[in-house]
Amino acid sequence: MSILVVGSVAFDSVKTPFGEAKEILGGSASYFSISASFFGPVSLVAVVGKDFPQEHLDLFQKFSVDTRGLQKVAGKTFRWAGEYGFALNEAKTLDTQLNVFESFKPEIPAGYRNCQYVFLGNIDPVLQRQVLAQVSKPKFVACDTMNYWISSKPEELKRTLAQVDILIINDGEARMMTGQPNVTKAARTICSWGPKILVVKKGEYGVAMYTGGSIFGAPAFPLEEVFDPTGAGDTFAGGFVGYLAKIGRLDDETLRKAVIYGSVMASFNVEDFSLNRMIRLKHSEIHERYRQFKELTHFEVDQSL
Amino acid sequence: MSILVVGSVAFDSVKTPFGEAKEILGGSASYFSISASFFGPVSLVAVVGKDFPQEHLDLFQKFSVDTRGLQKVAGKTFRWAGEYGFALNEAKTLDTQLNVFESFKPEIPAGYRNCQYVFLGNIDPVLQRQVLAQVSKPKFVACDTMNYWISSKPEELKRTLAQVDILIINDGEARMMTGQPNVTKAARTICSWGPKILVVKKGEYGVAMYTGGSIFGAPAFPLEEVFDPTGAGDTFAGGFVGYLAKIGRLDDETLRKAVIYGSVMASFNVEDFSLNRMIRLKHSEIHERYRQFKELTHFEVDQSL
Repeated sequence: MSILVVGSVAFDSVKTPFGEAKEILGGSASYFSISASFFGPVSLVAVVGKDFPQEHLDLFQKFSVDTRGLQKVAGKTFRWAGEYGFALNEAKTLDTQLNVFESFKPEIPAGYRNCQYVFLGNIDPVLQRQVLAQVSKPKFVACDTMNYWISSKPEELKRTLAQVDILIINDGEARMMTGQPNVTKAARTICSWGPKILVVKKGEYGVAMYTGGSIFGAPAFPLEEVFDPTGAGDTFAGGFVGYLAKIGRLDDETLRKAVIYGSVMASFNVEDFSLNRMIRLKHSEIHERYRQFKELTHFEVDQSL
Repeated sequence: MSILVVGSVAFDSVKTPFGEAKEILGGSASYFSISASFFGPVSLVAVVGKDFPQEHLDLFQKFSVDTRGLQKVAGKTFRWAGEYGFALNEAKTLDTQLNVFESFKPEIPAGYRNCQYVFLGNIDPVLQRQVLAQVSKPKFVACDTMNYWISSKPEELKRTLAQVDILIINDGEARMMTGQPNVTKAARTICSWGPKILVVKKGEYGVAMYTGGSIFGAPAFPLEEVFDPTGAGDTFAGGFVGYLAKIGRLDDETLRKAVIYGSVMASFNVEDFSLNRMIRLKHSEIHERYRQFKELTHFEVDQSL
């Protein structure tokens, strides 16, 4: 069954110590949908302007991403420009032009309404609930957010979280949402607001997942060459939600595998600008890196002490 | 066979958001030796002043730490005062009084010279080499250092590293030593200077270990209550080196288990001030937390994609 994703499609201009690229395809929904498409069909809801080229639409189609929900309206596509320092750990935003994204009202096409899996990309929590109001009982809803909504609309965000099964955020956001520097404690608080499952992304340090009774921790894949970290979080979410939708269950074993698939997809995405690495990614490479993750993290039980 | 440890024994005054303690037992060699003592005998080399109380000597003795190498000289014991903010991730040093530590010359008692395992705590790299000159062919030498020596004595440090098998540092130090923000790349450079094995500690984010052909990554144990992080790194080193010495081999399986034992010991140490938690720690608790680490990190292989 298809995954419905709602989020942004954008033109990014990115500068890293290793290169620079202007007006390349970006946005949360772009990264999510191409990543998730490796696991099954994706239905995209987003908005672009008249300047959005056929070439990008063709790319979505090539990856079996349904673009009937991609509105093309008068005006210019959302633009973001950012720069990374030598450590590549945080983007400095140089410019944001919301353009057509500013008045985005997600409209879910009739053909999407029975999607059993929903990913609410990082948009206004009020709009996130409007999406949920338009779909019929999905099997699960996963959700992202960001510091802007946490500080400007905390109550709206909590209302959205009450309807969400899985929240995927980074550790700074978990701390900010709760005012609690200890992430394990913060997780307990956040899960009391609605999500049964909380995934906390820590960039180069990996991921922690909190479910009812269990915590799962995984390091990030150790790469010698990180080229551009833009979109890593959404690519992670695409692999994570994509695998869960493929299996159709939220048991602990499946959730843990999903974290690894998400980490695998993110580790590829940072190897090149935009979706360039994803576009040439092969299933065999995903398998191989999953296996390498197993090697990376494996240790034996011990009784010798 | 006993582990020889050379480092500092100090009085710490520590303030955290949860409490304050004055002139409590601290120092790299104290944390290392009590932690390592859970795995086998330890021989301590350090210096204290005339103000060092019998009570602390009794503690070392209780944990079978040989203190024949603990020099007691005229003057006052090394004192450090620090404060942690709400996030507990970095100590702000309020005061450092080197006192007798300033003129510390490690003298290895005759009875220690055949120790097969050596841990060089964070002291002047010139002194670290003087220690090695006094011992007869150990099976392995592990070593720590800090930003102060990396910036003030980089060439002396490299000369020491050429004689070291295992280097245990944090990720900031790995970056600083190499001028390389990518830790995986930095690891390759550092290993070219001598150490066959590099352990990179990342505080609340866990540990990465680089050996010739393999990388091991482990998250930190997720604690809801971190009381005082002082000494966590040396306690990790104590568990890590302690387990390696117990087994007497440096194969990949043993090294990975050692990282987990180090992480287990550090996770206990941060639960209370000074060595308070270590003093009441039971072997059964170490076993149980090792088992919990296995649960925390386990995921199944997957062929379903």
